[in-house]
Amino acid sequence: MARWTETPVTVACASTGFSAEEKRGLYRAIYERRDVRAQFRPDPIPRPVLARLLAAAHHAPSVGFMQPWDFILIDDPALREAVHQVFVRENELAATNYQGEREALYRSLKLEGILESSLNLCVTCDRRRGGPHVLGRNTVLDTDLFSVCLAVQNLWLTARAEGIGVGWVSILDSEELADILALPEGVIPVAYLCLGYVNEFLPLPELQRRGWRGRLPLQKLLHQNRWGTAVPDVEQFESD
Amino acid sequence: MARWTETPVTVACASTGFSAEEKRGLYRAIYERRDVRAQFRPDPIPRPVLARLLAAAHHAPSVGFMQPWDFILIDDPALREAVHQVFVRENELAATNYQGEREALYRSLKLEGILESSLNLCVTCDRRRGGPHVLGRNTVLDTDLFSVCLAVQNLWLTARAEGIGVGWVSILDSEELADILALPEGVIPVAYLCLGYVNEFLPLPELQRRGWRGRLPLQKLLHQNRWGTAVPDVEQFESD
Repeated sequence: MARWTETPVTVACASTGFSAEEKRGLYRAIYERRDVRAQFRPDPIPRPVLARLLAAAHHAPSVGFMQPWDFILIDDPALREAVHQVFVRENELAATNYQGEREALYRSLKLEGILESSLNLCVTCDRRRGGPHVLGRNTVLDTDLFSVCLAVQNLWLTARAEGIGVGWVSILDSEELADILALPEGVIPVAYLCLGYVNEFLPLPELQRRGWRGRLPLQKLLHQNRWGTAVPDVEQFESD
Repeated sequence: MARWTETPVTVACASTGFSAEEKRGLYRAIYERRDVRAQFRPDPIPRPVLARLLAAAHHAPSVGFMQPWDFILIDDPALREAVHQVFVRENELAATNYQGEREALYRSLKLEGILESSLNLCVTCDRRRGGPHVLGRNTVLDTDLFSVCLAVQNLWLTARAEGIGVGWVSILDSEELADILALPEGVIPVAYLCLGYVNEFLPLPELQRRGWRGRLPLQKLLHQNRWGTAVPDVEQFESD
């Protein structure tokens, strides 16, 4: 968990250095972050805290400094109910992909906290922002979506440090969601997030804890120069 | 910059609380991270440090705990030269999108550090990992790519805390890159990154500093419940 502490390294340039405790804060946020579906408490997120999370998201890198994101704060119960209905239907469809024990396990998993979290937040991508020729987006058009994801991760990590759980609900139909939130043409929902203070952060990811899928060994995901060529000193890399 | 310190908040659950300095480390990484193209120094990244960065990336959230990422560590000069040639050609094409002063400014920007950074790292997405029915990836197929981006941001932030600069080179042709790196069918490159210790982290993003594009006001990117509906207390949200 805290393997980053095992081999302390002096940062070469003192003026940019992080203290051990500052580093620990970043690594803790990364290792203790969870995709939260349950454990939400109803108390609201104070505006100054939410403002910090959104400012952190807004300071993510983006292709050509495009900043293609918008943030829709959703507290209207009727809207949330509408989104929840989309989830319920899509999730029922998804459950039919599995059979037997796997289906039973799937159906027993809680996969969203749309109604009980204190805030829903949709992070969108305006695919036309910055005009037709965004610097660096000439070759791979989806880099705008990638930028939005980087912003989501900034928000997710700062939320963890503030004691706030975040769950990404991916089992939604994007077009229906766009209709519900009245998104204009060219703007698409990338992440639908549930936010709120939590009773606890689980020690392990829920899907790992429940035996749905395990963590892959990092060493098997490393390659030297070309796919399939082993990293010579691969034993130096560990997952945990 | 450090606006998160303005309104300290007691985290409700003491056992999950972050100290002020731990929080500062996370927010510093977010605000002081840069997309580095120049400023690279040649000294190599020690393996234990690189191992921390990759383990942090590996602990990103992923749809259905899919962990679709692989990491290709690229130090072969011939391979880098081949990738650089792809960049040069694509960048020349991109430059033709602009005219006059804008074109001159574009051509004066340094947009990659492929040859001079101490390590290149390609983060890929295996779109078939976890089989045909990945939990949560039923509706939006690109959620696997999104997961890879979350991993990239973990790496980017931890690199900053370790004094290491990271630059994402987006001006590359994905198919050519896949050929150079011998990626198998179903695996695509998502991020091509240049990593290395740096002389300094610039106080502002390069594109902002050089007048290519400014930071958008966060307040204009916020909506309440539906697109275009103002957040009532929007003055509580600031970008910086």
